Amino acid sequence: MDCMRTVEFDYSHQQVRLIDQRLLPGEFQVVAFKDYHQLVDAIRTMVVRGAPAIGATAAFGLALAAYQSQATDPAGLIADLRLAGDNLQAARPTAVNLSWAIRRVLATVQQHLEEAGPPSLAGLRELVLQEAQRIADEDVTLNKRMAQHGAALIQDGDTIIHHCNTGALATVDWGTALGVIRMAHEQGKRLHVLVDETRPRLQGARLTAWELEQYSIPYEIISDNAAGFFLRSGHVQKVFVGADRAAANGDVANKIGTYMLALAASDNGVPFYSVFPTSTIDLDLASGEHIPIEERDPQEVLAIEVEGARVAPLAAKARNPAFDVTPHRLITAIVTENGVVYPPFERNLPIAMRHGMK
Amino acid sequence: MDCMRTVEFDYSHQQVRLIDQRLLPGEFQVVAFKDYHQLVDAIRTMVVRGAPAIGATAAFGLALAAYQSQATDPAGLIADLRLAGDNLQAARPTAVNLSWAIRRVLATVQQHLEEAGPPSLAGLRELVLQEAQRIADEDVTLNKRMAQHGAALIQDGDTIIHHCNTGALATVDWGTALGVIRMAHEQGKRLHVLVDETRPRLQGARLTAWELEQYSIPYEIISDNAAGFFLRSGHVQKVFVGADRAAANGDVANKIGTYMLALAASDNGVPFYSVFPTSTIDLDLASGEHIPIEERDPQEVLAIEVEGARVAPLAAKARNPAFDVTPHRLITAIVTENGVVYPPFERNLPIAMRHGMK
Repeated sequence: MDCMRTVEFDYSHQQVRLIDQRLLPGEFQVVAFKDYHQLVDAIRTMVVRGAPAIGATAAFGLALAAYQSQATDPAGLIADLRLAGDNLQAARPTAVNLSWAIRRVLATVQQHLEEAGPPSLAGLRELVLQEAQRIADEDVTLNKRMAQHGAALIQDGDTIIHHCNTGALATVDWGTALGVIRMAHEQGKRLHVLVDETRPRLQGARLTAWELEQYSIPYEIISDNAAGFFLRSGHVQKVFVGADRAAANGDVANKIGTYMLALAASDNGVPFYSVFPTSTIDLDLASGEHIPIEERDPQEVLAIEVEGARVAPLAAKARNPAFDVTPHRLITAIVTENGVVYPPFERNLPIAMRHGMK
Repeated sequence: MDCMRTVEFDYSHQQVRLIDQRLLPGEFQVVAFKDYHQLVDAIRTMVVRGAPAIGATAAFGLALAAYQSQATDPAGLIADLRLAGDNLQAARPTAVNLSWAIRRVLATVQQHLEEAGPPSLAGLRELVLQEAQRIADEDVTLNKRMAQHGAALIQDGDTIIHHCNTGALATVDWGTALGVIRMAHEQGKRLHVLVDETRPRLQGARLTAWELEQYSIPYEIISDNAAGFFLRSGHVQKVFVGADRAAANGDVANKIGTYMLALAASDNGVPFYSVFPTSTIDLDLASGEHIPIEERDPQEVLAIEVEGARVAPLAAKARNPAFDVTPHRLITAIVTENGVVYPPFERNLPIAMRHGMK
C-alpha cells in the first residue's frame, strides 16, 4: 500500500487510478479512468468502496467532469459539474462522504467565483482538481490523527474484533478503524485481530486479511456468526468498526452486521468503538432511523462473489441490505480526527466537529 | 422428501441410506453404507447433519456394527457394540442426540439380557436394529407433535426468521423448527420466511431454501448479518431455531450465530423460540457454559463449501466454532413434543420431560 494510494490522480495522464478491490486478495490490479461516467460505475460496482475512499473518488470524478466539459463559460461548466455531482452521488446512497465531498468541491468553485470574479475556464478546472486533491490529502492526514487517538485505547496483548474493511483500501490511505489497529501495532503493542469475514461481499476475508498480512499483524478470519461466541468467551478486549454515516445522536450506519456485533459486545461488557472522521457526521439527521439504507443485488447473497459459486437453489430469492444502523446506546466511544468522543454524543459530537479535543 | 427419509434402514440390503446433504441443492443423491466405520465418517464430514438425524444415524450404525461383529457370544457382541458406540459418539461432540441414541440402544440390549436371559446372537442383532428403527420412527412422531404445538404460536401473515437447517433434512423426517413452520403453512397460514444463509456451511441457503421450495413456502435468503436489520425494521414477528443440546436452565447450544440472532430478537421485542425434543435436554449440565463446543476445520471459513471458492489470502488462518450457546434469558419459549415450555425453564423443562403438558 505504500507504493500507491487506493485512490489517486495521475497528473501525467489526467486520469483517476484505483486499486480494483473486487480482485483482491487473488490479484492486485490498478485500473485508470478518464471518463467520470466510468467512475460512477466503478463506485456502484465497488471497484472502490469504503466511505472515505468513495468520497475522494467522487471529488476526483468532478475533476474529470471539469476536463470533459464542453462548456464555453463558467456557468456552463458549473452546470456540467452539478450534473456530474448528481450522477456520482446517485452511485451509492448510504455513505455521506460522497455527497459531502461533492458539496465541498462545488462550494469551493462557487466561493471562488464570488470572491475572485469570473476566472478562466482552465483556472476553474484546475481549482476543481486542487480541491479534490486537498480532500484526498486531508483524508490521509485525518486518518493518521484518528489512528493516534484510537491507538491510545488499545492495550498490549489485546484481541480485537473488526468488521468489514476499514483500512487503507477503504480510504485514500491508512484507514479508519483498521488504521487505529495498525498504529497500535506500529507502536509495538502485541495484537491479535479476529476478522469478521463480512458477508455478503467478504470484505473482511478478502481485504482486511490482505491488509493485515501487509502489516504483519496476527489475525484469524471468523464467520460473522462466530463473533458472539468469541465475545462470550472472555478472550476479546475490544471491537473496532468504521462508519458510513453518523446521525446527530451518535447512531451509526455501517456495514450490515455491525448492529448485531454491537449487541454482542454490549451483552458481554466489551467496549465497542466506531472510528470515522467528523465529515461522516450528518447533523441534519436527528437519529439513525432517517439514514437511507442501500439494498444491493440479491446475487451477492445467492452466489459467492469471488468465483461466482452458486450456493442457493436456482429459483431462490434474496434480500441484501448493505448497511444497518447501530443505536448510540451500544457505542462506547467514537474516535474522530479531533479526539475520542464519549456519550452523550448529541452534545459531544458537535463539539468534536467544531474544534480539536483531547 | 416424501419419497424417502433423510436417514433410513434398507432391510433388503442391510444397509443405511442417507441423503448426501453436501450436494444439495445442486444434486439429490442417496448414499448407502454397510460398514459402520463409514457411517462415522459420514457423520463427521456432514453427509448427514442435524442433531436428531445424526442420533438416528448412530443408532442404525450400531445395527450395522451388530451385523459386522465377529463375536461368538453375547458378551463379545456387547463389547463390539460399546466400541462402535464410542466411535460413533466421537464423530461430533456438541449434539447430545448422538450419545442419547447410543445409550438408549445399549440400555435396551442390557435390559433384555437381564430380563430375558441369554438370547441368540441373531436375536440380539435384531433387537439392536429394532430399537434403532424405533428411535427413527419416534423421531418423526415427536417432530409432528412439536410441529403441532409450535404452529399454534404462528399467526396468519407472520414473517419468520429461521437459522441453519432444522427441517426434514436435519431429522429423520419432518423437522423441528422448520417442521413448525411447515405445519403452520399446511394449516393454511400465510407465511414468509427470511432464511439466514448460515455461514460457514450455508445450511440455510442450501438446505432450508431447498426444503421451503419443496413445501412451496415463500422465502428469501439473507446474509446472517442482515437478521438484525430486518428485526429492527419491525417487519419480523418471530424467530424459530432448533437446538443441539439444552442445559437444565434452558441455555441452548445451537448452530453458530444463534446467540447473536437471539440478542437481536430480544433487543426488538421479537419472540424467539427454540424447538427440540426433550431428548435434547441434558439435565446433567446446570448451564450452557458446560456444553462442549465443536471447532471444525478452518477451511470451511476460508473456502466456500459449495464449489471450493477461495475467499481469503492463501496464508490466512481461521477459527471455526460450529455452535454457540444462547442464554435462557433470551429465549421466549421452548417447543417440545410435550408442549410449549415457558420460563422458568429450570423448573418447567423437567416437568416437560416427565409428561405431556398443554
